[in-house]
Amino acid sequence: MELKEALAAKAVPVEAALREYLAVREPEQLYRAMAHIPLAGGKRLRPVMALLACELVGGDSAKAVPYAAALETIHNFTLIHDDVMDEDELRHGVPSAHAEFGIATAINAGDALFAYAFEMVTDSDCSQEMRAELVRHVASTVREVAEGQQMDLDFEEREKVAPAEYLEMVRLKTSILFGSAAYGGARIGGASEEQARELRQMAIDVGLGFQIWDDYLDATVAEELLGKPSGSDIRQGKRTLLVIEALDRATSEDQDRLTTILAGDNSDDDVAEAVAIMERSGALAACHEQANDFLQGVRATLAKYPQGEPRQLFEALLEYMVTRGH
Amino acid sequence: MELKEALAAKAVPVEAALREYLAVREPEQLYRAMAHIPLAGGKRLRPVMALLACELVGGDSAKAVPYAAALETIHNFTLIHDDVMDEDELRHGVPSAHAEFGIATAINAGDALFAYAFEMVTDSDCSQEMRAELVRHVASTVREVAEGQQMDLDFEEREKVAPAEYLEMVRLKTSILFGSAAYGGARIGGASEEQARELRQMAIDVGLGFQIWDDYLDATVAEELLGKPSGSDIRQGKRTLLVIEALDRATSEDQDRLTTILAGDNSDDDVAEAVAIMERSGALAACHEQANDFLQGVRATLAKYPQGEPRQLFEALLEYMVTRGH
Repeated sequence: MELKEALAAKAVPVEAALREYLAVREPEQLYRAMAHIPLAGGKRLRPVMALLACELVGGDSAKAVPYAAALETIHNFTLIHDDVMDEDELRHGVPSAHAEFGIATAINAGDALFAYAFEMVTDSDCSQEMRAELVRHVASTVREVAEGQQMDLDFEEREKVAPAEYLEMVRLKTSILFGSAAYGGARIGGASEEQARELRQMAIDVGLGFQIWDDYLDATVAEELLGKPSGSDIRQGKRTLLVIEALDRATSEDQDRLTTILAGDNSDDDVAEAVAIMERSGALAACHEQANDFLQGVRATLAKYPQGEPRQLFEALLEYMVTRGH
Repeated sequence: MELKEALAAKAVPVEAALREYLAVREPEQLYRAMAHIPLAGGKRLRPVMALLACELVGGDSAKAVPYAAALETIHNFTLIHDDVMDEDELRHGVPSAHAEFGIATAINAGDALFAYAFEMVTDSDCSQEMRAELVRHVASTVREVAEGQQMDLDFEEREKVAPAEYLEMVRLKTSILFGSAAYGGARIGGASEEQARELRQMAIDVGLGFQIWDDYLDATVAEELLGKPSGSDIRQGKRTLLVIEALDRATSEDQDRLTTILAGDNSDDDVAEAVAIMERSGALAACHEQANDFLQGVRATLAKYPQGEPRQLFEALLEYMVTRGH
């Protein structure tokens, strides 16, 4: 796929930087655990976002490579700790860090990656003033990511979550790191704070649109591709925006039924019934519309920038995120 | 105790800063978990070290308060994660963070504290250039702390650890954070890099001397105070420098006996026998000498600075660390 290759090509210098930063040294067990998930793959969407934002404002994206690597490193540290918290044993098709190295080493490796990310931020090719600004920006972003993670943990204990609360959780847990990628890339590329903030908001909207779209695809796309519902989120009882919207909109009978399906071991028929409830409650349509709204906003911001490789690739990146190769 | 009060008085502005930084807000569960251990007590030795280093070089320590708070926050984040890794249920006489809030929230709260610490570093009253320098210094220090933590984890799996390896582990895991406290405090106070590095080394030696002394006291002091060995490290089978030195120096018969005592449920007699092996192997004397060597070096560096409140308090701090109020 041409587009995927173009994005991979964009990520090459970040890939190289990550491999250099994460070279195994003493104590070996720590550095192996640190490198395990970051070097197991991933689409490098955050680094690509940083480099493209840099180029979009006319900057030289080579200067933003360490910053881009920092954002990918932070993303990976959160994955490693999230896997411990959620007791997930697989990530990117390999054993999660704690499954491979044990819980203690995985927590420690996540901490070391987080520290390392700040070293990378200060490796960026810009003034010390700018580095200090970016450190502060990234640090407050990661604190907000932890707030989002906490909301997610808290929601598991609650019966009812409002759609607006859910969206705020996704914004914090998933989207603002994309925002920081764009912000820092743009600032290193010479953007004013105002311009960088606009690109940050655009990237946050990409993240939100992306996440909602992802939930939507999980409930709908396999139906078209495989002739049967996939709905792995439903099977796992995950509270996605779709579920939140359906519980907010459905008849009380459908609400009860959906809650029962999500709570239990569910058959293919149960999953199909859950999707039907999402459909007739209007939740599917609402999520589709919401995802589209976010992505329309993104396209409007992007249209302010001159035609050229960075804007084209940005648009391609959006398209890729939305279609996920389907 | 006058000295303890003087140190507590020194820590007052940091205590106030921590309370302000750690005020509970939404999501409440996260901020409660973040504040739980940092506000449960502790001697604030790292912040006091930062403020005293600042004053020692003629600086205004008010400027270093956010930096001092950052170091205390980092120390506490490592405590919270260490307690998860070691499955320790108590800390500062209260339930550890994961015992009180669950493992997922505790890991997340540690991450949020770590992020917050970098915000605090950039709150320091100094130039943006200096803030960027301090961020880099602190980040690389925390990565080294994780290296020390990993060595400690790795040692648990190994039969034999050399005294030099053990000391390197302690230097990384415990002492270099004291070093960073002194380095940053001195830099904010106007010290040259060279001067700040000397004070950093001094603080590292304080940390090392302190840790070895602590191990030594655990095996010996209760004997004097209570008329019977306390030896909680021995009971827990902990590998302290004392144990490492004893296993390095004792007859092979004594080595075997000590290993057996450390591995099993041990009676008071067993603990007393372990202490006797430490004594006759020369390990007790060696540790006593080593701790003294470090602390002598510290006093020699300190002697270069003018008499006055900061130096006096520094000397008092050393004395306090060594005697621990005994």
